[in-house]
Amino acid sequence: MKEFVLHPQLAADCTLVGDLPLSRVLLLNDGRYPWVVLVPRRVDIREIYQLNPDDRQQLLAESCLAGEVLMRSFDGEKLNIGALGNMVPQLHVHHIVRRHDDPAWPGPVWGHSPAVAYQPQQLHARLTLLREALGTVDIA
Amino acid sequence: MKEFVLHPQLAADCTLVGDLPLSRVLLLNDGRYPWVVLVPRRVDIREIYQLNPDDRQQLLAESCLAGEVLMRSFDGEKLNIGALGNMVPQLHVHHIVRRHDDPAWPGPVWGHSPAVAYQPQQLHARLTLLREALGTVDIA
Repeated sequence: MKEFVLHPQLAADCTLVGDLPLSRVLLLNDGRYPWVVLVPRRVDIREIYQLNPDDRQQLLAESCLAGEVLMRSFDGEKLNIGALGNMVPQLHVHHIVRRHDDPAWPGPVWGHSPAVAYQPQQLHARLTLLREALGTVDIA
Repeated sequence: MKEFVLHPQLAADCTLVGDLPLSRVLLLNDGRYPWVVLVPRRVDIREIYQLNPDDRQQLLAESCLAGEVLMRSFDGEKLNIGALGNMVPQLHVHHIVRRHDDPAWPGPVWGHSPAVAYQPQQLHARLTLLREALGTVDIA
């Protein structure tokens, strides 16, 4: 039986937050947007509809949790959710807090401009906040 | 009690397919991509997590149905799902069939280039196919 392994591109672009019951939770390395990626720990799944019914439900629950926590914690004006996967086929769902003063507003963030790395202190604070608010399990 | 009214921008950009139990189903007027938009018929909802639990489940079911039908009917290589709403605040969920030879590949379609209108015959064929495959109720 194949084991779940995070796609190397996601590992390179993100910092690990922790695990929810279904998904590995990642923070995208772009300090301009609070941007969380959920990756269901399932093998060979590219589309949400390929998940079994229980996993679909769980992904929905985790997506709503992540979205609500992000919007509340970072004073968001609009949440953007996207499951694209044109470049990284492993199923992953973006959750991005948008504000009228962010660089890509009102367009999508994907493909807009290169990421701007977090300052270490800002990264640490954001990870701490997300781990507590989401209740993720530490897998480091 | 306020009644659901489709946002005028969605009405302008799309052609009506029909209704599923929760969502109004629209076809975006861009012949380059098979592109279906689901709009839950609820008032003052901007985010998926604002839906009540039953509506969340139903939207998930309708999203999976739409995604699977689109990918099977149009020989898709990747499905893109997005709930953005930066310009149109009424909750609506995009489902777009992507192929390696489409104009925006591998980037997102949003903001890529102006829509290219359907030829009437192509539009008619696509609507007929979608109505049958999705089992939508005609509301025209």
